Amino acid sequence: MERAEMIEAVKAEMPERRWIHTEGVMATSILLAERFGGDPERAELASILHDVAKFWATDRLAAVIADNGLGDDWLAYDKELWHAPAGAWEAKTRFGVDDEDVLNAIRFHTSGRGGMSKLEKIVWLADYIEPGRDFPGVDNIRSLSEKSLDSAILAGLEATIGVLMQRGRLIYPLTIEARNDLLRSLNKE
Amino acid sequence: MERAEMIEAVKAEMPERRWIHTEGVMATSILLAERFGGDPERAELASILHDVAKFWATDRLAAVIADNGLGDDWLAYDKELWHAPAGAWEAKTRFGVDDEDVLNAIRFHTSGRGGMSKLEKIVWLADYIEPGRDFPGVDNIRSLSEKSLDSAILAGLEATIGVLMQRGRLIYPLTIEARNDLLRSLNKE
Repeated sequence: MERAEMIEAVKAEMPERRWIHTEGVMATSILLAERFGGDPERAELASILHDVAKFWATDRLAAVIADNGLGDDWLAYDKELWHAPAGAWEAKTRFGVDDEDVLNAIRFHTSGRGGMSKLEKIVWLADYIEPGRDFPGVDNIRSLSEKSLDSAILAGLEATIGVLMQRGRLIYPLTIEARNDLLRSLNKE
Repeated sequence: MERAEMIEAVKAEMPERRWIHTEGVMATSILLAERFGGDPERAELASILHDVAKFWATDRLAAVIADNGLGDDWLAYDKELWHAPAGAWEAKTRFGVDDEDVLNAIRFHTSGRGGMSKLEKIVWLADYIEPGRDFPGVDNIRSLSEKSLDSAILAGLEATIGVLMQRGRLIYPLTIEARNDLLRSLNKE
């Protein structure tokens, strides 16, 4: 599918404010790809599609995950995560994306996971710091993102884990694996 | 082995201040067992032995875990956890403990795990709040322990996760499973 056509289709799936967020993620992921030696075109593609399933009904998300065996035990954890694997499935089946790295960048854009690829890291971080984001600590993570993809994501994941504990929400195991894995990598540097 | 003989043998394995801690855990675990319908005698037995390997050299701990296939991927995580599975092994092989629940209470007394038994919970919490413990937040967790084993452990695990993040230390996956599992149980109540 052509880029322009894909953009129109994704825009139609969400309210305007979420599309503005998506544009922020697209622009930020291109910047991060250029900064850290990633592929801007694939980063943008994953960003366009990352929230395509964000406004699906919970029942639809659960059915897509269950019926297509999307794995990783998503349904036992927070509903907020479900649009990510469902979005990857939609990217593949409706939008014809067959680049597994792009699909993984969509699939793990909320949770993270251990052993994230550079593209996965770029999309995760772009989603966290795009210009529309405004929450305590985001400027610190934007600063970290000037120099180190891993340090910025580590700080973002730890802030997320803290918020989940404060709010009494489940912590997804892959999020802890992502955090531990980045800490190990940074300690080796 | 007789209780008195066991106590002498465990005392010989640690400095005095750690034995005083162990006595605190013994007394607290008995109280918690009485409060929450657990078995005071088995709680005390696990408590006597819980830190028996605390002062072993790191090499010895690693060797015992590796050579005896003690599982759970301990060696990929923080050394601070290793004395717990090594202590369970010592309890079994040297002290002749064959009660699997007592052994698990020793094995998981630092990390916790999903699906902890009542005895495991009692020993975990007794270790956390015994009278010698003095760190920010411990009095809050002592208060919680007046009414709910699960709420007190949840708060203790979350404080631990916060400290591990602050200190840049790995978070053991079973600790997250323990936290998520308690949260699920409490949400069902």
